[in-house]
Amino acid sequence: MSFDFEVVATDGAARAGILHTPHGEILTPVFAPVGTAGTVKAVPPRDLEELDTQLILANTYHLYLRPGDELVRNLGGLHEFMRWDRPILTDSGGFQVFSLADINKIDEDGVTFRSHIDGSQKRLTPERSMQIQQNLGADIIMAFDQCPPPTDRAEVEAAIARTHSWLRRCRRAHPDDEKQALFGIVQGGVFPDLREASARFVTDMDLKGYALGGLAVGESKEEMVATLDQTVPCLPCDKPRYLMGVGEPDDLVEGITRGIDIFDCVIPTRLARHGAAFTHDGRVNLRNARYRADEAPIDSALVNYSSQFSRAYLRHLLVAKELLAYYLISLHNIDFLVRHVGNIRQAIIEGSLREYAARFLPRYLRRDLSTE
Amino acid sequence: MSFDFEVVATDGAARAGILHTPHGEILTPVFAPVGTAGTVKAVPPRDLEELDTQLILANTYHLYLRPGDELVRNLGGLHEFMRWDRPILTDSGGFQVFSLADINKIDEDGVTFRSHIDGSQKRLTPERSMQIQQNLGADIIMAFDQCPPPTDRAEVEAAIARTHSWLRRCRRAHPDDEKQALFGIVQGGVFPDLREASARFVTDMDLKGYALGGLAVGESKEEMVATLDQTVPCLPCDKPRYLMGVGEPDDLVEGITRGIDIFDCVIPTRLARHGAAFTHDGRVNLRNARYRADEAPIDSALVNYSSQFSRAYLRHLLVAKELLAYYLISLHNIDFLVRHVGNIRQAIIEGSLREYAARFLPRYLRRDLSTE
Repeated sequence: MSFDFEVVATDGAARAGILHTPHGEILTPVFAPVGTAGTVKAVPPRDLEELDTQLILANTYHLYLRPGDELVRNLGGLHEFMRWDRPILTDSGGFQVFSLADINKIDEDGVTFRSHIDGSQKRLTPERSMQIQQNLGADIIMAFDQCPPPTDRAEVEAAIARTHSWLRRCRRAHPDDEKQALFGIVQGGVFPDLREASARFVTDMDLKGYALGGLAVGESKEEMVATLDQTVPCLPCDKPRYLMGVGEPDDLVEGITRGIDIFDCVIPTRLARHGAAFTHDGRVNLRNARYRADEAPIDSALVNYSSQFSRAYLRHLLVAKELLAYYLISLHNIDFLVRHVGNIRQAIIEGSLREYAARFLPRYLRRDLSTE
Repeated sequence: MSFDFEVVATDGAARAGILHTPHGEILTPVFAPVGTAGTVKAVPPRDLEELDTQLILANTYHLYLRPGDELVRNLGGLHEFMRWDRPILTDSGGFQVFSLADINKIDEDGVTFRSHIDGSQKRLTPERSMQIQQNLGADIIMAFDQCPPPTDRAEVEAAIARTHSWLRRCRRAHPDDEKQALFGIVQGGVFPDLREASARFVTDMDLKGYALGGLAVGESKEEMVATLDQTVPCLPCDKPRYLMGVGEPDDLVEGITRGIDIFDCVIPTRLARHGAAFTHDGRVNLRNARYRADEAPIDSALVNYSSQFSRAYLRHLLVAKELLAYYLISLHNIDFLVRHVGNIRQAIIEGSLREYAARFLPRYLRRDLSTE
């Protein structure tokens, strides 16, 4: 049945599961690349399938502004529009409104803002976010929330109150969880008591899944991990748990170890556009002159289409600003994260997650990134 | 044997042939997309193979300046560097030096110029062009020539004299035609007597193939066609004939009808970056608002990966400046030209070229391009 979630194995707090959706099963833990405007930047959907990408995230804010959610609905929904027939998750638009838009007014009812594209005045409310996400037709949709700076207690308290009130309205505006699953978002910044209160409120709504919001937005890694340690146990075991906006390879290990099932992040494609690539020995920047004549692939432990090309060729493409560079490096970075999470899932099933982490993390973190 | 050329069928002056190269057979007539800097912009080599692209052109001038021909040689040559194991043709660098570089001095020996990339002083001579093209390792290489404005008789005469003297030096600097075939270039602008004299001189050198240079560089279509009518009969029947820099669908028909075998042009990828696509009903610009909600593919007569996507989606990608647009439209445009030339080859074999042209040209040329 749609959105049933089965935990098939555990290793400590970590879980391997299966989330059923109208567009097929998602094996969790899962990493979702981000296709902001209905395209994972520079990567054709068939290449994403080839890499065993199971889930992508698209941004409600961007698609609402351009090309417009009603146009997407009239063209058959986002799956049809972008030719991707595996699961899609859309965010609520809240995060982008608060980070990208020129906000005119936040009130109890919603947010009035100017589009960052053409300056036109727009308004988002919980009901409107649900309507837009229904028009887009993603499998998993998110409640409209306010994401505050995570270390300012007064702001976090105000944002929680608003987020909870808006969640009630989202629930009412989205009564049917058969075609689309509504996930609620636990806020609370880095404050344990606020996280716990928010988790209690949100999980009382009995939703299809729960997200941790307001992390990876400025707090330290230690604060993020401490918040996971404290908050994840407040979430029910039988529902998927989603850590929004997190995708660094080491953070994926930390999150999964603490019981997170779903991640999304722009990092694989954004890094690629800056010439940076993940390797098992840490992150490298392929623009660096040291790769000028380097015949090796980006990471010899990864075999995909981009691994046919030398670092020297990729560096040449980057220096010449050739579009093929962004495609090949994005492909590599997505493959790196998708396989990494797939390997972690396998380790959970085999009961060897601790060994995987002990093998992966020291090697990945050894390199001093500041020298790149 | 390498670079043997067989004509397998004729239809009027048009020929269907097979050109043997160290990287496989080329069925002619053939259209070669351009991979200026060692990449056909935005299109991975495996996609070019999927489209049955048989030959690509790379630019000696660009690769000489960046990443440098010696680096490419040290990395195994251009085929290995860019992971393309089908035939490659390199130009001589002459055309780009005269059109892109800041020229300091042209003398009998060669050209001194400033790189358009970093302003450094560089020098190309016939011998240096041969050396660079040997380092790059293309299957077909071109003699170093001077391409003048085609309608200025005095300039054309001076350029021919220099081009012929340089061709002798290219021949001496490239004694071995087994690994790489040297093609000579007939100049002469739009002047029949000069074209004839140039054709006589160049074909007397008994090279592996002959190109018509200095066309599609500012003269009218009528002048180009008249020059083909007059010059092609001056070239031997048993060698491939190459019309440089031509790729408009109607010009391909005109060229093949007059006995041309090889074409190259940046047009499919350059148009794509501006949102323009070939269709059997003429060229369209997919940025146009009329395609906002258009569910049809670019051209319903063409079935390839890009034809899975609607014009509405492609327009959205273009408006949002998403890289996927350039990939999908480039794919379409290359497929359009490669299949068009393949269909023409089939028509030659069937003796129906006139019918093909009568079907294709009026429909393709009907649309008023200025309204797009």
